[in-house]
Amino acid sequence: MSTEGDSERGPAGEQRRGPERARSRAISAAVITCSDRSAAGLRADVSGELAAELLAAAGQEVLSRAVVRDDVADIRAAVSSALALGVDVVLTTGGTGLAPTDVTPEAVRPMLDREIPGIAEALRSGAAARVPTSVLSRGVAGSIGRTLVVTLPGSTGGVRDGLAVLAPLFAHIIDQLAGGDHHPGGGV
Amino acid sequence: MSTEGDSERGPAGEQRRGPERARSRAISAAVITCSDRSAAGLRADVSGELAAELLAAAGQEVLSRAVVRDDVADIRAAVSSALALGVDVVLTTGGTGLAPTDVTPEAVRPMLDREIPGIAEALRSGAAARVPTSVLSRGVAGSIGRTLVVTLPGSTGGVRDGLAVLAPLFAHIIDQLAGGDHHPGGGV
Amino acid sequence: MSTEGDSERGPAGEQRRGPERARSRAISAAVITCSDRSAAGLRADVSGELAAELLAAAGQEVLSRAVVRDDVADIRAAVSSALALGVDVVLTTGGTGLAPTDVTPEAVRPMLDREIPGIAEALRSGAAARVPTSVLSRGVAGSIGRTLVVTLPGSTGGVRDGLAVLAPLFAHIIDQLAGGDHHPGGGV
Repeated sequence: MSTEGDSERGPAGEQRRGPERARSRAISAAVITCSDRSAAGLRADVSGELAAELLAAAGQEVLSRAVVRDDVADIRAAVSSALALGVDVVLTTGGTGLAPTDVTPEAVRPMLDREIPGIAEALRSGAAARVPTSVLSRGVAGSIGRTLVVTLPGSTGGVRDGLAVLAPLFAHIIDQLAGGDHHPGGGV
Repeated sequence: MSTEGDSERGPAGEQRRGPERARSRAISAAVITCSDRSAAGLRADVSGELAAELLAAAGQEVLSRAVVRDDVADIRAAVSSALALGVDVVLTTGGTGLAPTDVTPEAVRPMLDREIPGIAEALRSGAAARVPTSVLSRGVAGSIGRTLVVTLPGSTGGVRDGLAVLAPLFAHIIDQLAGGDHHPGGGV
Repeated sequence: MSTEGDSERGPAGEQRRGPERARSRAISAAVITCSDRSAAGLRADVSGELAAELLAAAGQEVLSRAVVRDDVADIRAAVSSALALGVDVVLTTGGTGLAPTDVTPEAVRPMLDREIPGIAEALRSGAAARVPTSVLSRGVAGSIGRTLVVTLPGSTGGVRDGLAVLAPLFAHIIDQLAGGDHHPGGGV
């Protein structure tokens, strides 16, 4: 057990995985933009486009894109469609704020098998020093089966900051959700 | 869409509002002190007085002050009275700790239409480096209709630190709660 | 009230307690390791041993140690046994991650009388700069009667970082849970 040092700690301190064990296949993702105005064609889908670009730049395959109204049923249907594709990650953008039309957390939270509160906390706190209003996002994160689902804010800044937090964690998260902690010498 | 840069991100990245759009009317507030001892006259209402002073210094109109016992029903009645005044902000002080008498979160949370977890997180983490025990506050924040409700700790330090976090956000929050994201070129 | 300055703020800003008021009796603790492999004897109980060592080094009496499977019923039975000893603190290690077998939060959360979300937040964020995956722990903290219960990650790093956050707070927390804010001049 002398090999279990701090430097080897993995996700949630639960798992360790050497570089030789890293996933080689690309992570697959779906991006859903939640915006009344974009769904109505009144506004370009800037945030969804940026999320897809950043995922692709991080080596992920973006298998689907959708733009839906700020509507609980529509958002859930879009998430369900993405899950049906078997993607590893579903990201939504928009609808996490305080306006009466912002319902993305209300749509997504009840779909989650398990919440991962630290991701939502990190998304909020990571940018708080530069963007004080980032603490107002009510975004949620969690797992549905083996899929990670995260609701990002609808601004380009929020999407960019969010992906900066998430991208380095994707492989670990997907491994863990798939039960990847069962390897010799792994964490508890 | 070239105008949507990081520097323009608004609350929760959901909204942008130039200085020319800032609210000109004063924000109205109510302050409720939750303390058995202050309600019994055994202790001056130091925390409520400080909260009111800091709100006034930030240009807000404090329309009501109340001091109630650490009692769920009494706290809820005081919050309801404040809401009946149509205030933009309700702040409570006290009763957020771990003592058996601390019941402010239990009183206020079920009244909230929507929680804003990032505010509670920011109130705790903001002072944690200087005041490690600030992580022990169980305070909550959220909206009831268009009103922001936040439960602050009962110490002067906790009130001061809390207002330092909240004051710069009040106008954005009130605008969002009123549906203020529906302006041309706004965030998603 | 001139004595109520920031420097005197106590837990959650709710309590102040001078050094002369500090508890003199040792805090008692129980440590429960949640790990299928350790319970099966396939892996040494490194994280539980470290937690017990760090508690003892902080002057606490570790009254019991247990190693249980990643099983909701088994974890709850172990927590109940610890509570029956009347300990001040119950720490679990392991099972807070995202793997399907990780069920410690599911086991412990429903047992809590009150959650203390700031402790879980601090455990995640404290190490996030050095260990980005620490945000993935779904650990919970709260009180059951007068006992503090915290679920730590299963890695040695997570245990070490967690105790670094918790150790300075134990005496304050135990005092508050026992109703210790009712002293002259104390916070609200």
